Amino acid sequence: MPHILLLSSDAEVYRSILESANLPDLIIEKEPTQACEIIFGAPSSIRKVLNDLPNVHWVQSMWAGVEPLLEPSLRKNYILTNARGVFGQLMSEYILGYLLAHERQIFQLRQMQKEKVWFDFDTGTLRGKTLGLLGVGSIGAEVARTAKFFGMNVRGYTKESEASSEVDKYYHGNDLLEFARGLDYLVSILPNTAETKKIVDGKVLGVLPPHALFINVGRGSAVDEPALLAALGQHKIAGAILDVFEQEPLPEGHPFWEAPHLTMTFHTSAPSLPEDIARVFIENYQLYVEGKPLKYVVDFERGY
Amino acid sequence: MPHILLLSSDAEVYRSILESANLPDLIIEKEPTQACEIIFGAPSSIRKVLNDLPNVHWVQSMWAGVEPLLEPSLRKNYILTNARGVFGQLMSEYILGYLLAHERQIFQLRQMQKEKVWFDFDTGTLRGKTLGLLGVGSIGAEVARTAKFFGMNVRGYTKESEASSEVDKYYHGNDLLEFARGLDYLVSILPNTAETKKIVDGKVLGVLPPHALFINVGRGSAVDEPALLAALGQHKIAGAILDVFEQEPLPEGHPFWEAPHLTMTFHTSAPSLPEDIARVFIENYQLYVEGKPLKYVVDFERGY
Repeated sequence: MPHILLLSSDAEVYRSILESANLPDLIIEKEPTQACEIIFGAPSSIRKVLNDLPNVHWVQSMWAGVEPLLEPSLRKNYILTNARGVFGQLMSEYILGYLLAHERQIFQLRQMQKEKVWFDFDTGTLRGKTLGLLGVGSIGAEVARTAKFFGMNVRGYTKESEASSEVDKYYHGNDLLEFARGLDYLVSILPNTAETKKIVDGKVLGVLPPHALFINVGRGSAVDEPALLAALGQHKIAGAILDVFEQEPLPEGHPFWEAPHLTMTFHTSAPSLPEDIARVFIENYQLYVEGKPLKYVVDFERGY
Repeated sequence: MPHILLLSSDAEVYRSILESANLPDLIIEKEPTQACEIIFGAPSSIRKVLNDLPNVHWVQSMWAGVEPLLEPSLRKNYILTNARGVFGQLMSEYILGYLLAHERQIFQLRQMQKEKVWFDFDTGTLRGKTLGLLGVGSIGAEVARTAKFFGMNVRGYTKESEASSEVDKYYHGNDLLEFARGLDYLVSILPNTAETKKIVDGKVLGVLPPHALFINVGRGSAVDEPALLAALGQHKIAGAILDVFEQEPLPEGHPFWEAPHLTMTFHTSAPSLPEDIARVFIENYQLYVEGKPLKYVVDFERGY
């Protein structure tokens, strides 16, 4: 009878999803007890109790990022799994939403309405545009599939993988500028690693056409922030949509707050929806009780 | 040697597309002459010259809507074809753009940025939502296909057709309220006919849930405007996105300009892109010179 500790501000929502899933022999605890063998929760809450619960063998994170559990003082002698495979559609929706806001001039039309001016002009389309993906993992593959659905051309820049067949052309290593040249939309989905640091720099931004849009939904560290500010200020690109930043929340007084043609969205691109995250847990729980290897195991050394 | 009269503010763009298509024996006229046998143009311009050109046998409308050519005083003894099959993706982009702006709270996030407040909250998703299509022709079918791509459930209300297999459930006739009940998104793509007049009335709006969004990309005549204003003012629905109106441009002083939760977009949902519309003409012209039946023939009685 595994005891599971549920740690989330949405604990009641999760409890009701888990209860209706009729998982075998599961006992759900709201408070930490020594009987707890499993934790399913937000890393920021888990880190506070982890060292006091020696019987916990498995932790399922509700987030993709598990940085709080990587702290040196925390024990690592358990299986940590994260939330993966559930953010592809959410990221695609976000990216599509902002590409469409751009092409269909959603903000400009709203301004017209405010000014009570009937404005009769033609808006653009996604069809035939070229989108470049920096990073093509499971999220990038889903974004590529969505872009193809809308008739776009898709380029992908990766370390080596060419896993998604929806990408029309792959680029690697020194081909970064060739990859970026002439793109209508540049989208970064890169994680924070030594190799991705400031990869979107003045050179990359310099080969984009003036009508290009840059979207960052990966990690803020992939962007050379002063170079982006310069590109926006000098109209070298049409705009940037930033969901992530080198420092979050973005500090008061950071020039991004008032930069022209810069839209920021406060790390909302892929919310952890309980029905999605619970599905990951349920799948892993079934593997756990059957004694099988779990999915999405985090490598403490790599950090993801 | 058919003489064709080209009537459009984009006449030069169309001329260049038609000339590069090397159509057999085509003579393009910019001004009405008695030699004209074909008109390719905007209905609002065609109606002014049609009765003076008795040799015109065929009119290809650049628009989907042909209301100006249905006026009782105009002759109807010719073949009228409209632009069809080209607006599906554009309409889908528009609808998706506004559904995503709604779910992902694009306007609210922009407001946060203006106020320089880092706002940490979860946004919604399209997946699992139910979209109801009022009218399922070629545009509706494409919208349904897009909605299914994003994991939505799709209901369709039609006179009798059940042509799109992407619609999960069809409704007809007296089933209108059953169709509308509980929809997350109600989208009207209906043309202006006697049967569609004010079909979106207080009863239909009354069975939508308070979080529902109504989008009208068909014709303004399908909406009971005072009933919609009341529903928005009383928070019976969350919002309306209106691309079309009973009177366009919307008159000064019309209450829609300042209605709460109402977004208007000035009939921009499906721009007639010359490359698309010219393709329709070229296809029909080839049928015409071969003496074959044309595509997209308008039934003057039905009005579409």
